[in-house]
Amino acid sequence: MDKQLVLPVKKKVELTSIDPKDTGGILSKEEVAVETLKLKEEFQDLQEKLAATKKKSLLFVFQGMDCSGKDGVIKKVFAGLNPQGVSSYSFKTPTLEESEHDFLWRAHNKAPVLGHITTFNRSYYEDVLITRVHNMITDKEAKRRFKDINHFEELLSNNNTKIIKIFLHISKEFQLEKLKSRIEDPTKNWKFDPSDLQERKSWKQYRKYYEEMLEKCSVVSPWHVIPSDNRWYRDYSVLKIVVEAMRSLRLRDPEPDPELLQYLDQISKEESH
Amino acid sequence: MDKQLVLPVKKKVELTSIDPKDTGGILSKEEVAVETLKLKEEFQDLQEKLAATKKKSLLFVFQGMDCSGKDGVIKKVFAGLNPQGVSSYSFKTPTLEESEHDFLWRAHNKAPVLGHITTFNRSYYEDVLITRVHNMITDKEAKRRFKDINHFEELLSNNNTKIIKIFLHISKEFQLEKLKSRIEDPTKNWKFDPSDLQERKSWKQYRKYYEEMLEKCSVVSPWHVIPSDNRWYRDYSVLKIVVEAMRSLRLRDPEPDPELLQYLDQISKEESH
Repeated sequence: MDKQLVLPVKKKVELTSIDPKDTGGILSKEEVAVETLKLKEEFQDLQEKLAATKKKSLLFVFQGMDCSGKDGVIKKVFAGLNPQGVSSYSFKTPTLEESEHDFLWRAHNKAPVLGHITTFNRSYYEDVLITRVHNMITDKEAKRRFKDINHFEELLSNNNTKIIKIFLHISKEFQLEKLKSRIEDPTKNWKFDPSDLQERKSWKQYRKYYEEMLEKCSVVSPWHVIPSDNRWYRDYSVLKIVVEAMRSLRLRDPEPDPELLQYLDQISKEESH
Repeated sequence: MDKQLVLPVKKKVELTSIDPKDTGGILSKEEVAVETLKLKEEFQDLQEKLAATKKKSLLFVFQGMDCSGKDGVIKKVFAGLNPQGVSSYSFKTPTLEESEHDFLWRAHNKAPVLGHITTFNRSYYEDVLITRVHNMITDKEAKRRFKDINHFEELLSNNNTKIIKIFLHISKEFQLEKLKSRIEDPTKNWKFDPSDLQERKSWKQYRKYYEEMLEKCSVVSPWHVIPSDNRWYRDYSVLKIVVEAMRSLRLRDPEPDPELLQYLDQISKEESH
């Protein structure tokens, strides 16, 4: 059986105690191939219902170190849906306009509309991660931001948006492998950013701030920690979490409108004149 | 062999001379199944190159009467791509904010960023269609708008955006069938909008204004008219056009950066200390 790591609310988290190579007892991709196909189909059905009913929306937040596979997992899990009901945003260094607002402004701006699924590749959580590693904010400010984030997630949750937060957990060796392949494989060169090497030097600091984030921002919606050294396990686990989140909305086909049959008569009559 | 209708520049168009049931000599979906699979794979590869090089973007504009399958074809052709590189917008009645700007403002706002593919489900072309049927603008104003639209498309084209315009051509009988199924099938009820029946009454007027649009706005990028009474032919034709448009960009993998190997050495050295 596979297990999926949903973190408990407000408990201290030790990432070193979670093995990034873990596959929850599943031996290979093949073992879950059939289930994966079924989950994909169910996901597509549920998306149609979500779009049809327009009463809920979902926000999937992806965080993780460079090379943890945020881009890859979004591609794998969310491709195949009706693109008209999916919005994907990648948060980078704030623009001048963005930096002249509070740190949640740009995220709020991209919050999903009813009936839609939105993915965030990185998010407002960077504002309590990279900003701390680079000493751009104090610990006191970080604490304030944890609170602001919890309030923001509460606001969305109270207004029909389900938030699912996923942390892709990789080992330092795995990152090195990936960085090397980005450099050596010409078709992957474009993914390589020299600044990734700089950030890598702060691995331990990142881990510390990630742990604090995982602990402090688990109030409204918990974090899922996904061992991600094995891509297939990462993709499978995230797909399961995503489908489970959709199921939990208990989406139904919208109620048929009894007045519509009346319209049908109307068409037939009018056009036979 | 199948033919695809690309309209000539600034020539009068007669939609009644184009059979909405045409399948370009192809007898069935099965006949193009293998090619469809290949095209889908090529599309995915080309999208990766487009995202990697970030030098071009594509805008696909879909127009057509109610029930012509704009939603369906976007879903069929664009699902399977990396959702992070696709943005889809559906243009509805303008909001108050939108209506307080010129008619191209909201479309410009949603124009694709470099490396991305954007689809418009309806577009600024509604501003020379439904607005004319409902006498919201004069013929003189419509003429001005044709010019504005051509200028707008020129602006985008001059700035690395390729625009592909697709008109889904259906028969009036086909629309009736679809409207009926939306009413009779409870899972499709949500798609039914009673105002569609009102618009149906103006079928001939719509056709006239569509013909004028197809003629006047073929300057910067031509219109493709796709016989759409057969869904499989519609999907196949649009996929072909889309892949052809991607090919025409002559995308290549980005050039490998010779300095990167140097970085690789740097990593190895630094981390062995």
